[in-house]
Amino acid sequence: MRPHDRGDASYPVSEINQVKRLHDRGFYEYATVHALLDAAMLCHVSYVIDGQPFCTPTFFWREGGRLYWHGSSASRMLRNLAHGEPACLTVTHLDALVLARSGYNHSADYRSVMAFGKARLVEGPQEKERALVMMVDRLYPKRTAGLRPATAQEIKATTVIAMDIERASAKIRARGVVDEDEDYALPIYAERIPVSTVLGPPEPCPRMEASVARPSTLEGYAAGRSLEDAVSEAYTISAQAFRSGAD
Amino acid sequence: MRPHDRGDASYPVSEINQVKRLHDRGFYEYATVHALLDAAMLCHVSYVIDGQPFCTPTFFWREGGRLYWHGSSASRMLRNLAHGEPACLTVTHLDALVLARSGYNHSADYRSVMAFGKARLVEGPQEKERALVMMVDRLYPKRTAGLRPATAQEIKATTVIAMDIERASAKIRARGVVDEDEDYALPIYAERIPVSTVLGPPEPCPRMEASVARPSTLEGYAAGRSLEDAVSEAYTISAQAFRSGAD
Repeated sequence: MRPHDRGDASYPVSEINQVKRLHDRGFYEYATVHALLDAAMLCHVSYVIDGQPFCTPTFFWREGGRLYWHGSSASRMLRNLAHGEPACLTVTHLDALVLARSGYNHSADYRSVMAFGKARLVEGPQEKERALVMMVDRLYPKRTAGLRPATAQEIKATTVIAMDIERASAKIRARGVVDEDEDYALPIYAERIPVSTVLGPPEPCPRMEASVARPSTLEGYAAGRSLEDAVSEAYTISAQAFRSGAD
Repeated sequence: MRPHDRGDASYPVSEINQVKRLHDRGFYEYATVHALLDAAMLCHVSYVIDGQPFCTPTFFWREGGRLYWHGSSASRMLRNLAHGEPACLTVTHLDALVLARSGYNHSADYRSVMAFGKARLVEGPQEKERALVMMVDRLYPKRTAGLRPATAQEIKATTVIAMDIERASAKIRARGVVDEDEDYALPIYAERIPVSTVLGPPEPCPRMEASVARPSTLEGYAAGRSLEDAVSEAYTISAQAFRSGAD
């Protein structure tokens, strides 16, 4: 078992990743951090160019203690991250709005991860090819095998970035309404409103012949299901396939 | 009409905010940028400490061409942004997953905004008090008036950050499946899967007396509604109230 598959091990804690505010919300175990990462489709990556921070939304995936994300070779971000630049990749799952009896105690239930490391360009053809397959198959298991193969030009035009996680922390609030003791008796309405990101009914491409059926590997992406459940399940299936392929 | 309420005006375009990749996805008009900001509850803010970028999820709101966000005085981010540090605030609305006939054309429909400026600490008591009211009322119109008033300690413990938007760009993809011309005839399944963040049934605080009813001002937060619609509508109502209050 590789170190990053051990759920009881933790990321080291330092000034950079220590959750300072409300210490009870901070977690550093691989199992907690990785589960939150693997359930997310979208992340935001921060990087610095000439002192100016940028915060860019993108798609990503994890393999062990390494994160990958991608973009066009023309992208400002990737051009500048190519030589081991410090970066921070964050995912946030919003779970509920929290309306309390004072403005101060208004909050939200959420689960987030901040991962820190040095981002580098993936240039080796084997690592890049593997990454391009994972980029699709982590979300849609085994899908690449049935697609029109990538052309040399497409592979060239796709930039893949890798970052070994040096520090990471998860921050979780799952408490609903929490008020000051003396405020509970006040006649003020307070509630928690759950929030969920869900899938709608799939819309087949209108330019597809009617004989082309939806493959069973996409059954996890069913209308009404939470995106997080679908992505998390797909990741588990794909990670098994990748591990056995790598053995 | 204040300049930032004019929908036909635009943010200036420079090296920092120009959408480089796929130019047709870039928009700079106030109307487009602001509508996407006002429909979002959550943002990610990037800032730099000793060369290390941080990407922090938080809540925010807009007034004219100014963005506000907040946090505890203990927060690492806010301590360091207090003196006019460059920052980037990003919101992302994910609309659909796009499964194409090649790996290269897998994509997503989304709408995002990146806003750039110098973040500063809000210290003036009037601006801070107004900001603390807006923080709640922009999401829940008129709610602050019915809450237990903030204490001096709570106001002191809350840090409010303001950033005048110097540059901003919106990036929008709303095209569903787009494949290479020669790929459409291939017998490969392709689809668009819509994604939406929706509200669940409100969960009243269990420590509330049964006689306390849900106020009509929360009707916009109805089970099954999209969070974006509820937030956007609440913002419109609150912005009107704030404008007439300021006149």
